[in-house]
Amino acid sequence: MVGIIMGSLSDRPIMQEAANALNELRVPYEMEIVSAHRTPERMLEYASSARSRGLKVIIAGAGGAAHLPGMVASLTSLPVIGVPVLSSNSIDGWDSVLSILQMPAGVPVATVALNGGRNAGILAAQIIGASNVELARRLDLFKDGLKQKVAAMNQELKINL
Amino acid sequence: MVGIIMGSLSDRPIMQEAANALNELRVPYEMEIVSAHRTPERMLEYASSARSRGLKVIIAGAGGAAHLPGMVASLTSLPVIGVPVLSSNSIDGWDSVLSILQMPAGVPVATVALNGGRNAGILAAQIIGASNVELARRLDLFKDGLKQKVAAMNQELKINL
Amino acid sequence: MVGIIMGSLSDRPIMQEAANALNELRVPYEMEIVSAHRTPERMLEYASSARSRGLKVIIAGAGGAAHLPGMVASLTSLPVIGVPVLSSNSIDGWDSVLSILQMPAGVPVATVALNGGRNAGILAAQIIGASNVELARRLDLFKDGLKQKVAAMNQELKINL
Amino acid sequence: MVGIIMGSLSDRPIMQEAANALNELRVPYEMEIVSAHRTPERMLEYASSARSRGLKVIIAGAGGAAHLPGMVASLTSLPVIGVPVLSSNSIDGWDSVLSILQMPAGVPVATVALNGGRNAGILAAQIIGASNVELARRLDLFKDGLKQKVAAMNQELKINL
Amino acid sequence: MVGIIMGSLSDRPIMQEAANALNELRVPYEMEIVSAHRTPERMLEYASSARSRGLKVIIAGAGGAAHLPGMVASLTSLPVIGVPVLSSNSIDGWDSVLSILQMPAGVPVATVALNGGRNAGILAAQIIGASNVELARRLDLFKDGLKQKVAAMNQELKINL
Amino acid sequence: MVGIIMGSLSDRPIMQEAANALNELRVPYEMEIVSAHRTPERMLEYASSARSRGLKVIIAGAGGAAHLPGMVASLTSLPVIGVPVLSSNSIDGWDSVLSILQMPAGVPVATVALNGGRNAGILAAQIIGASNVELARRLDLFKDGLKQKVAAMNQELKINL
Amino acid sequence: MVGIIMGSLSDRPIMQEAANALNELRVPYEMEIVSAHRTPERMLEYASSARSRGLKVIIAGAGGAAHLPGMVASLTSLPVIGVPVLSSNSIDGWDSVLSILQMPAGVPVATVALNGGRNAGILAAQIIGASNVELARRLDLFKDGLKQKVAAMNQELKINL
Amino acid sequence: MVGIIMGSLSDRPIMQEAANALNELRVPYEMEIVSAHRTPERMLEYASSARSRGLKVIIAGAGGAAHLPGMVASLTSLPVIGVPVLSSNSIDGWDSVLSILQMPAGVPVATVALNGGRNAGILAAQIIGASNVELARRLDLFKDGLKQKVAAMNQELKINL
Repeated sequence: MVGIIMGSLSDRPIMQEAANALNELRVPYEMEIVSAHRTPERMLEYASSARSRGLKVIIAGAGGAAHLPGMVASLTSLPVIGVPVLSSNSIDGWDSVLSILQMPAGVPVATVALNGGRNAGILAAQIIGASNVELARRLDLFKDGLKQKVAAMNQELKINL
Repeated sequence: MVGIIMGSLSDRPIMQEAANALNELRVPYEMEIVSAHRTPERMLEYASSARSRGLKVIIAGAGGAAHLPGMVASLTSLPVIGVPVLSSNSIDGWDSVLSILQMPAGVPVATVALNGGRNAGILAAQIIGASNVELARRLDLFKDGLKQKVAAMNQELKINL
Repeated sequence: MVGIIMGSLSDRPIMQEAANALNELRVPYEMEIVSAHRTPERMLEYASSARSRGLKVIIAGAGGAAHLPGMVASLTSLPVIGVPVLSSNSIDGWDSVLSILQMPAGVPVATVALNGGRNAGILAAQIIGASNVELARRLDLFKDGLKQKVAAMNQELKINL
Repeated sequence: MVGIIMGSLSDRPIMQEAANALNELRVPYEMEIVSAHRTPERMLEYASSARSRGLKVIIAGAGGAAHLPGMVASLTSLPVIGVPVLSSNSIDGWDSVLSILQMPAGVPVATVALNGGRNAGILAAQIIGASNVELARRLDLFKDGLKQKVAAMNQELKINL
Repeated sequence: MVGIIMGSLSDRPIMQEAANALNELRVPYEMEIVSAHRTPERMLEYASSARSRGLKVIIAGAGGAAHLPGMVASLTSLPVIGVPVLSSNSIDGWDSVLSILQMPAGVPVATVALNGGRNAGILAAQIIGASNVELARRLDLFKDGLKQKVAAMNQELKINL
Repeated sequence: MVGIIMGSLSDRPIMQEAANALNELRVPYEMEIVSAHRTPERMLEYASSARSRGLKVIIAGAGGAAHLPGMVASLTSLPVIGVPVLSSNSIDGWDSVLSILQMPAGVPVATVALNGGRNAGILAAQIIGASNVELARRLDLFKDGLKQKVAAMNQELKINL
Repeated sequence: MVGIIMGSLSDRPIMQEAANALNELRVPYEMEIVSAHRTPERMLEYASSARSRGLKVIIAGAGGAAHLPGMVASLTSLPVIGVPVLSSNSIDGWDSVLSILQMPAGVPVATVALNGGRNAGILAAQIIGASNVELARRLDLFKDGLKQKVAAMNQELKINL
Repeated sequence: MVGIIMGSLSDRPIMQEAANALNELRVPYEMEIVSAHRTPERMLEYASSARSRGLKVIIAGAGGAAHLPGMVASLTSLPVIGVPVLSSNSIDGWDSVLSILQMPAGVPVATVALNGGRNAGILAAQIIGASNVELARRLDLFKDGLKQKVAAMNQELKINL
């Protein structure tokens, strides 16, 4: 239901966090390397066939002049989530953030935080959960889990005071 | 199906573009001013009842230290789209962009470009269209319309060469 | 008299410096983890009951899209001091600084420097000391201590010339 | 009770907003031009006599390499609120924001948003109100007023929908 | 010999300066609107057929999340010159500059200054002139013209002293 | 055919990547240290004799206030490629990027990404390849190599899934 | 005694302020347009003959990728004052500021604020006044004038309160 | 002849480079810690007596909200060189650079690069050398030394090719 793509194997650690979140929320996904700059034809093929292959959301991560999320969004009407990845030789991540976020009117990319792979996975689940009661319930439980983590941290804090 | 909220009436021109896009794509929406900083209780009420009131996506726009999108996302498991608005006394929009985009792991906000109201509307439609064949078709036609606009611009260019 | 809150246990080292400064100045405080994004209801409760529980100042620290200080300020008329914390995946701290500092008119947050936990503690004491002669005197002695540290550094410099 | 100072007459429009907020909240203040760079001796005199003259808070505004708030804070143990002012030839306000905000440990400045004169006035009132029940009540009413403004904006929005 | 493309008719004024420079240097060119995000297939076709159609250099201009220059560079081995265009809703041009400049290893884009249409035209001529003695001579004369303009400005300065 | 120059031996690791790319593409080059600020006369001599010595492209790398690429471009009508190098005490590379990229109209520098030595070498080959069928073919093969690397990364990804 | 140079006639308004300050302080100067990028040989000649022609300080102003101050500093051992000028198509002045300020070790440029022509003139006078008692006295009187201006502004403020 | 001051002992490594450069050029200096924020009265005394104690130039270094150079410049008509020091918790050095560079009209600070201690020393010597033939000659020899270092680096490069 979710396609996770990335421009390079070096983006894997961040993008795996999206996959992990989807696993926790029991949303099926596929993962593949598709480079806007090195395999543009493959990108075109991947994006334009995505809906017919049954995908509901695409998560695309890239660093530097990160064109993958925006280009995929130009080739499909599915929602596309963009993950700016902090790569080596990046200028502090600004390049990746701005080249994913600042899309022109007509072609949106749902951008998450720098290195926000985990949030991309959760957002993909929320998008599917907008029309899926079962998944919506799991997302609400997931939110409860966040509260419990804060409670646990508070206990640890009190002990160490 | 879509809730459009904004922190101040001064955000209206940008947020109206989201409404316009939804009108073009025939997606019903509601629009309201909900301020994170001036009406926090109202925000809590709005966000936590959103799913039960039948909303599928929330679009939240704000400027400066823009907390509305992220706080709404903390209160619902619906997908939340954040629109950074360039307000007066903003530091070139950076404040609004970063305080919407850089959400911590667990609570994503689908951020669009600075003043990207129109893209927020389209993205909301894409999210609903992920599970709605009818709307998906309208989105594909919308994409064709973008191509035709480029063709028209090209004709204008050729005439003026 | 001072409530120190933070969004995550990872903010502890910075926020402990606020506590240390308050200890040095003999100002009583409490410390707790309250997350704007994971425990919004707890935050609402904490902030709205703060004055009645006897607090005079709240110090709130957070990183990334740091909404805690501003949201607490929206829920109480006590002075709120915001501490931008440099978290992992932050864009050099800009996200945290701007989402705490750039509050809209009506809801101020007294922002200190990035990772400025110690200064937050001192500022809280100065705020209480504005109406407390005893504490004001301790603050003046504290200022003398700063001068003596410079004198000591100068001696060290002269020896190493 | 509050001293409002600024580096130049050109800072007046922003600093007047602090005075206006204090007027609304019925907190007495004085206003004067004190330049860190052009009248350093006057600044020294002003700041070091502030507490004995009965001031409880100092609000200092300046633009560019804005040294006034920090220098005043080095000369008194009263709480000092810094207002970064966007002046001509500023680099988008960054110079003013950073030279007020990034104070070293030991000498805090309570920084508000760029051009945040109004919030400086409110914050000064909150600081005094921390130990003043009467003023605290006025601040709570002031907060209610913010809610009513949002309600009024909502009505205007609904009419124009 | 030179293909000038741009993402939108609104980029025309800047890109016309490239055409003007090529006219002055008597280098033939074509000009067309090709949008990476709205006409991705047309972009693919344009870029992959460029060399066989006899082009020697492509100049591509775009604003915001500017993907056109980099995507064209991914589809041809001709040199591609990228012109960051300052568009409305840009964050001061940083988005456009960084999404053109920061290309990953393997796919260079020869980036010129923000709104540097004229320099893009001159650079295209220099690239062709690297293997074209006739054009090289015209470029040297062009450089002499720059010197003469400075001399003329100096005369004007001396008169007005 | 290509002259590679750099301001300091510390730029060597980045600039060697340009040489490596030219080696892979079998384009002859020379390499030398020429400092704009320490050997300005040598720079003048190098740049003004470059074309007559048979060079077709100059690649110039420098860090900080990086004047070498722009100054060389002012002294020759050959295409000059600028490589911003991230040096120690740089402000995150911004100084080097902006002082190479933002050349005034009349004197272009073909700027590549921060530390983009490899792309500078490829771009130099593309410039020569614009008028050299043999080299153009090698560049097309090089592009195929990029595709194969992505395919290889994909296999690695699939194994580790 | 002071040479004022600038890269273009468009820098004149800012650089005239340096001349005005020198006039007020009765320090003789000359003014000329010398472009690093368009008249590099003239720049070399100007800078290397400056000391022998009797100059004691050079003030150089330029915008964008501003190489004039640094290149002049590389060609003379006189102190060189750099004035970053905000030119059209500048990225908010950052390009000019960083390409003047961030000089490598060995070749300093005394940089003043963006558009700081007036301060460049005063600084030149201070440099000469370091070894000139007469001028030092005029500078002290000038400083007194600054104080009087603040006093005058204060009177205006009091009248308008 | 030169006073070197710094805000904290942690600035010593950078400021020692100024001292080293002055040693190499045989210019006498003194070195001391003077903190704008912790010893403002000492700063006032140091700066206002500097000229009468025989100093010709003051070099002041500081990090973060760096007020020392500008405040010293407000208290003396001697030329003041400012050294932005990259301190811990700095926002990449921007705070220090901007709070030293962006001085208001009337009170210049001769700013050098981030961590540019060595250049501050050389600039101080150039300022004194403007009126000192002997020192001017040493500075010219120093410049020759820079050329020889480049020649030596070139030899090393050639050996390693």
